[in-house]
Parts: sequence; C-alpha cells; structure tokens
Amino acid sequence: MEVFFSRDIRFGRCTLDEGESAHCLRVMRHRQGDEIFVIDGEGTLYTCRIEDASPHAVEAVVLKEEPDWGAHPYFLQMAVCPTKNSDRYEWFAEKATELGLDVIVPVIGERSERRVFKPERLERILLSASKQSLKGAVPFVAAPVSVKDFILSCDASLKMICCCFEGETPRRPVSDVLRESGTPGTSIAILIGPEGDFSRQEAALALENGFVPVHLGPSRLRTETAALTAVEAVYLHYCL
Amino acid sequence: MEVFFSRDIRFGRCTLDEGESAHCLRVMRHRQGDEIFVIDGEGTLYTCRIEDASPHAVEAVVLKEEPDWGAHPYFLQMAVCPTKNSDRYEWFAEKATELGLDVIVPVIGERSERRVFKPERLERILLSASKQSLKGAVPFVAAPVSVKDFILSCDASLKMICCCFEGETPRRPVSDVLRESGTPGTSIAILIGPEGDFSRQEAALALENGFVPVHLGPSRLRTETAALTAVEAVYLHYCL
Repeated sequence: MEVFFSRDIRFGRCTLDEGESAHCLRVMRHRQGDEIFVIDGEGTLYTCRIEDASPHAVEAVVLKEEPDWGAHPYFLQMAVCPTKNSDRYEWFAEKATELGLDVIVPVIGERSERRVFKPERLERILLSASKQSLKGAVPFVAAPVSVKDFILSCDASLKMICCCFEGETPRRPVSDVLRESGTPGTSIAILIGPEGDFSRQEAALALENGFVPVHLGPSRLRTETAALTAVEAVYLHYCL
Repeated sequence: MEVFFSRDIRFGRCTLDEGESAHCLRVMRHRQGDEIFVIDGEGTLYTCRIEDASPHAVEAVVLKEEPDWGAHPYFLQMAVCPTKNSDRYEWFAEKATELGLDVIVPVIGERSERRVFKPERLERILLSASKQSLKGAVPFVAAPVSVKDFILSCDASLKMICCCFEGETPRRPVSDVLRESGTPGTSIAILIGPEGDFSRQEAALALENGFVPVHLGPSRLRTETAALTAVEAVYLHYCL
C-alpha cells in the first residue's frame, strides 16, 4: 500500500506538493481517475480520487476519511540527548516511529558532547517511516531544549528517567512501572541521557519533579539502543 | 572499561593479534606491566598483565578469569532473512548483540530478494558490539541456510515463527508465548521472514515442525525492526 502526504487537505479536496506529485505521477504512474491514499500527518488517512494530474500539484477529491489511522493506545514523548553520531539518533527515530511514538524532544544535558541539533533531516526520516509503517500521524520533532528545562516543563502523567548511578538511586525495571501505571491513553515521557549520563544535579532535579528512576536491565546499551528499548517496552506493554 | 579480544589464551598466558596489539599499544598507550581486560569470545573475561609489549603480538599473563561475563539467562538463535539493504541487517545484529543474542542464522526464503550473504563484515560488527557492551561471548554467525533446512534442523526447545498471513493462521503475541514457556535457560529460536514474507509452504512446514506462529503487535515493522522487536521481547521477559 502506497501512501502520500499532504498538508493541503480541506473542503473535501487534497493537493499534493511538487515532490509528492512527481512521485505519484512519474514513479507510481498514477493518472486522472486513480484512487490514492493520502495522510495529513495529524492521524487521518484520506482515500482520494485524482481529478487533475498536474505534474506540479496533483489535485484529488476526498472519497473517505479514516481518523486515528494506525494509531497506538498511548501518548509517548521520548526526550533523548543527541548522540555523537547523528545516524544513530536517526535510526532510533525511524524505528521508534515504526513502533509508535508521538514526540521526540532532543534534550541537551550538561554532559552532552553534541550540543547542536538539525531537525530537517530527522523530520524527513519520520515522515517516510510513518508512510512506510502505515500511520496517519507523523511524530513531532520538538525544538532542542536543555535537560533541566525539559524536566521543569514536562507535563506527562507518567514520567521516567533512565539513568545509571548504580547503587546510588534505587531504580525500578521500566516494565514494572508500566505494568503499574501504564493504563490506556496514559501520557508517558521517558528521558534518556547522553553517553556521559546525566549530571547529579539533572538526576536530582528529575526526581524532585516526579520522574521515576528506571533501568532497562543488565546490558550496557548505547544511548540509541537504550532509547529504542524504552520505546519497545512501552509498545510491548500496550500493544501485545 | 576497554576490552580486547584474543583467540590465543592458554596455559595462563594471552597473546593479542596484530590489530589488537596495535590498538592496545598505539591507541590505548598500554605499556609492559599494565593490566588489561581480554575476552575470548566464548564467554570468559580475563584480567591480564602485559609482560611483552611487542607491537605485533602483545603477550600478557592471566591474573583472573571470569566465566559467563555479561551472560544472559537464555539461549537465543535469531534466524533472519537477509534484508535488501545489508546496513539494516548489520544494525539489527549490533543492537541484538548489545541486548543479548547467541546465534544469528541468515536464512534464505523462497521469496527472499537477497540470496547471497557475506559473514565477514557482520562478524567484525558483532565482535565490536560485544566488546562495547561488555560481554564475554560474541554471537556466532551461522552459515546461510534455506528457511526449509533451518526449520527441519532447528533443535531449540521453544521455536517461534513471525509470519503475516493475517486471518489465515491464528498467531499469538510473542510476549504471551514467552510468559508461558520462557523459563530460565530455555533455548529459543525465532524465525523472521523476508520483506515478501514466507511462502505458504515454508509457513506450513514450520507449523508441522513445532514452530509457534507469533505476532509482534499491530504495527507494520520492517524485517530488521521485527527481528529486533523479537529480541527485545525476549530480553525484557528475562532480564527485567
């Protein structure tokens, strides 16, 4: 099933931008009268019929709307410090999108080695992963923010922080916390630190602000693997 | 913690090959008398002291042995069809190694688009992932085999096949099957099909041979994401 994306769907009509129009006509060889599937990135799938196969702006009429298409029964924000190698961050984001993710927040910790973050490329990857995995909603990439500001502004109902500090702070298995508090529709935020972990001040601030300290088991995981493992724990808890 | 690898550890002595010797001396700047950590790839961590800092073959004496270093409480074989893009197979293998994996079997299905598989590069990736995630055992890369031959030869005590065929074969959530049958030390094999799924004959043969048909939830996952999700389900079941 091939899915197109459009920001311009209203009054029962849909227009594809130049890139999507070219893909629709030249690559997929669609013609006037063909039925196509279009997502709005907000969660709805539209079944449309092409009325004007213009190479720069395909125009289609909406035949059917399916809200919450490919939706998941939770709201998940992943606040993850950018990795030194941005490919690793991008594959985490792609895989998390396939599983079910709502918001990615690039957070910069006191010990983060990488402090700049360019969202454009990541947004393209999330759009294509959403289309590929048949989801109407594309995860939102928030503006980069410091770990402290994220902790102070996070309004999720279930907040978790994955930190090391072995022996210092008692940490619970992420799956136990989900079993207890992960009811349908829960808004969840999970904070994943940089390669050098959080600073003591950041971890203390998170605990003061209601973040549950969790661990992801005995394996030493890279930042992106830890982040994906947290998403997998949420996905497996809610969807299996 | 920096870990080196050696195939040559016996009679209380350890020799590093040329590549590991260069890394040990030039990159890590170790000298005669330094203590280093060496894995044998079979599961044991050796604490050694360098006696001869020869640039081509560092010689060290073994001070301490830790068997089952970084071991996991299950034995997991992942039989996964090679993906069209081999990077995707390699990252699955790297992440699965960080979590805990024993054997990767590249299986070629009737509908596999990619039918050749070169293990050398993958073996290097698994070794470096094992060192990085502090595991004494490096997963074994089996020789490529057809899906049918794998099904007929697999001797794991818990065998699962992730197939699509929506509606045709009743499939159980992988986590339910693990909860029922995933006791400590269980030998588990999970078979993951190619992009085009298994043929009906392959799926039928698997069922005849005791493979439990499982699903990984509602999301449409790429081959490598499905394979990693299965490893995560095993890891989370046993280790959290």
